[in-house]
Amino acid sequence: MAPVKISIIGAGSAVFSMRLVNDLCKTKGLSGSLVSLMDIDEQRLNGVYELAVRYVKELGADLRFEKTTSLETSLHEADFVINTALVGGHAYLDKVREIGERYGYYRGIDAQELNMVTDYCTITNFNQLKFFVDLARMMERICPNAWLLQTANPVFEGTNLISRCSKIKVVGFCHGHHGVIEMAEALNLDEKKLDWQVAGFNHAIWLNRFFYDGEDGYELLDRWIEGGNLEGWKPRNPFDVQMSPAAIDMYRFYGMMPIGDTVRNGTWYYNKDFETKKRWYGEPWGGPDSDIGRRWLYDQLALGVELIKKFAQDESFSFKRFVNYFGPLLVTLPEDIRQTVEMLLDANRLSNEPVVQFIDSLVNGNVRRFVINVPNEGYIEGIPDGVFVEVPAVVDKDGWHVERIEPKLSEKVLKFYLWPRMLRMEWALYAIMNGDKSALIEFLMRDPRTNSLEQAKNVIEEILNLSENLSMRKHYEKNLKFC
Amino acid sequence: MAPVKISIIGAGSAVFSMRLVNDLCKTKGLSGSLVSLMDIDEQRLNGVYELAVRYVKELGADLRFEKTTSLETSLHEADFVINTALVGGHAYLDKVREIGERYGYYRGIDAQELNMVTDYCTITNFNQLKFFVDLARMMERICPNAWLLQTANPVFEGTNLISRCSKIKVVGFCHGHHGVIEMAEALNLDEKKLDWQVAGFNHAIWLNRFFYDGEDGYELLDRWIEGGNLEGWKPRNPFDVQMSPAAIDMYRFYGMMPIGDTVRNGTWYYNKDFETKKRWYGEPWGGPDSDIGRRWLYDQLALGVELIKKFAQDESFSFKRFVNYFGPLLVTLPEDIRQTVEMLLDANRLSNEPVVQFIDSLVNGNVRRFVINVPNEGYIEGIPDGVFVEVPAVVDKDGWHVERIEPKLSEKVLKFYLWPRMLRMEWALYAIMNGDKSALIEFLMRDPRTNSLEQAKNVIEEILNLSENLSMRKHYEKNLKFC
Repeated sequence: MAPVKISIIGAGSAVFSMRLVNDLCKTKGLSGSLVSLMDIDEQRLNGVYELAVRYVKELGADLRFEKTTSLETSLHEADFVINTALVGGHAYLDKVREIGERYGYYRGIDAQELNMVTDYCTITNFNQLKFFVDLARMMERICPNAWLLQTANPVFEGTNLISRCSKIKVVGFCHGHHGVIEMAEALNLDEKKLDWQVAGFNHAIWLNRFFYDGEDGYELLDRWIEGGNLEGWKPRNPFDVQMSPAAIDMYRFYGMMPIGDTVRNGTWYYNKDFETKKRWYGEPWGGPDSDIGRRWLYDQLALGVELIKKFAQDESFSFKRFVNYFGPLLVTLPEDIRQTVEMLLDANRLSNEPVVQFIDSLVNGNVRRFVINVPNEGYIEGIPDGVFVEVPAVVDKDGWHVERIEPKLSEKVLKFYLWPRMLRMEWALYAIMNGDKSALIEFLMRDPRTNSLEQAKNVIEEILNLSENLSMRKHYEKNLKFC
Repeated sequence: MAPVKISIIGAGSAVFSMRLVNDLCKTKGLSGSLVSLMDIDEQRLNGVYELAVRYVKELGADLRFEKTTSLETSLHEADFVINTALVGGHAYLDKVREIGERYGYYRGIDAQELNMVTDYCTITNFNQLKFFVDLARMMERICPNAWLLQTANPVFEGTNLISRCSKIKVVGFCHGHHGVIEMAEALNLDEKKLDWQVAGFNHAIWLNRFFYDGEDGYELLDRWIEGGNLEGWKPRNPFDVQMSPAAIDMYRFYGMMPIGDTVRNGTWYYNKDFETKKRWYGEPWGGPDSDIGRRWLYDQLALGVELIKKFAQDESFSFKRFVNYFGPLLVTLPEDIRQTVEMLLDANRLSNEPVVQFIDSLVNGNVRRFVINVPNEGYIEGIPDGVFVEVPAVVDKDGWHVERIEPKLSEKVLKFYLWPRMLRMEWALYAIMNGDKSALIEFLMRDPRTNSLEQAKNVIEEILNLSENLSMRKHYEKNLKFC
């Protein structure tokens, strides 16, 4: 047993924070630990704190909490810092999206050759990336030996940026690889008999190994497709795209199955307009990145915030009486919330978030397998060393031991998907690390939707002029450097 | 003195062949060598043979010739094989260009993100790339120790392809770096006082070092620009683009000057349509890759062929009486021909083609500096080893010794220009080496001018259906592999 201090930055995301609290309560080796909940939204922070304390009390677990709106306070004596913050929130992203669409960039403006959807940060969310670096620098000063566990997006750009601007130990996390389990469910396979590996970059991972009970899993997938299952496929929610026509089309081209969010990051061809999205990601939403797909997410998030507020304020609320509390209205709750509460009520169930288990493996040597984002050291052939790759690894007290990636990623995955994706990361990092506006514009000039230099220049100008972007504007006007 | 056998493949290009003959006659160390002129166009071959023999006789040089339409005969006992052939000639490229334009691809169909012009081979000229490999394989059988000196385009794709499919020693050559001298002339600088380096890939080289008499040459360039010289600039011919607005615009973005054909390989933004080309590459031609720029080249080439035929058939023609022969009509000759004849008449003048000097350095140890295309071995940081780079090197009996590239290429050149260019090479080589038609189509899907999958599929289909492309069609239908 080794109690540690874990700082959760952006702890106001109740579902995420409660998942971590859940895992911490059920991980004996971390008993007695101190969880520092940090958020700049005091109201949401209070709600989460209230719930967390009540949950631990109900459970009789040994876990302490502090809450703070000060980053410095939270980092004080921290052993692990989990960064889950989205600076400016979804509102900022929506604002930028709206501007982009006025300039002819449907759904976000920094579409990458292979990525029409992750408009959430790579070139326009300067504040988010800047925060990553500021946080790492503050850690160097306050808790230089702490680990930075990065779950906030963009994980790929973020981990690379942090590692180039600071000496802090950083590892990236994502639950995207659970797409493998979704796939197994669709194919009616028993998870326990699977032998699988994924490899790539965050949101760009591919199922390089797939065996089922000794059999070639890809043959089972082929049979699923040939059996007409694709035609009958319907998404259960906007994020349910693992078995979508887009995923299968990518599988046909790349020779390996894209896993999790990788499916969203296909070419413009799947994402041209809403009709196209519906065709490739299923009706009615057209995937999580369409207008209504986003609205679905925001509705769920807003409902979640409301519920947390309600629970926290209601003295009579308890986790144990959760089912009775809602009665027949239970089914109207967002799935995310329902599942989280179910998990909280189950004495043995852990969340899908790997960070707490990762801490336990590292601190207490409880050996487990993870999919983590760490600097490449020859793990993926053809990707330069130092670039962060998402790979399966066994973690123990000595750190991570990345599995030998076998079979290797297909040449097509490497050359037609990962390299272009890596190039976009390098462009974004070049622009931000050098405060070079011409690089921001050039980034857009490579967007197939750009028809003129003015289009690219003007959209960047309008974004730089947002009141939220004063420091971004200064950064690019003065060519400020990050390191 | 070490006589060797030099085989020139595609020797029917009279100007190129006569330049090599010129250099051979004036390079003492290669006296007594045998030059094997090989071409499948017998008439043009005869003309060149006739002229070469007559020139050597007039000069009293010691050089022997053979002419043949058989590749095998030519390779027999060859020490050096110079490949200058363009399979299918310009007529094939024009045919493909016309098809491409009907499908919405202005000037060629395999526009790359950074290259809207070199439609000459990368994905549509299968026969050319296939010939490169066939030639190397035949050399392995007939003259396994010979050097393959590759001047035929695409040199970048070609050298990489050959090195991946064969063990033959291959080096690529191009005179593109003479753009440095053109630049010096424009800036009114004495060539002898220059200290320069270029580095990159073929047709993608950048002036990383530029000093004049100890002074920073880039300051002189800046003064040239500030002095209003750009506004007054006019091209002397379509290929005269070294000081064009496109070159200066690239310099401003990349922080280093693009040299030679690099200027032609700018973004779509310089090449969108004829009006755009004229703005960036000068009037009236809009550079060498516009419709009229090409026509200018073809007119010159056709006139050259006519003249060679005439000279060869006319017993009274001699190089010594060349000036009298034409009289006042001399000025109407294409500049290329005039300059070549002037050179032939000058006892000491060598051509700009480096291959003969390279052979002399290698065979006789006469140490010289070249710009050559060789596999990277850490010469350019950030480019994988093994990929062919165009770099300055000193050559002697032991081979090449690449100079330390100092200062390094700018990060922007590396990340925004060379990496995308390398990616396109890898895509083209993947497609051809695996006979994977889906990769050909995907290549076009990344072209900003592609609006639908059908557009990309149909243009490829029409090209595959050309009578010249029977073997290409079979290659892609049967997924044939190169190695």
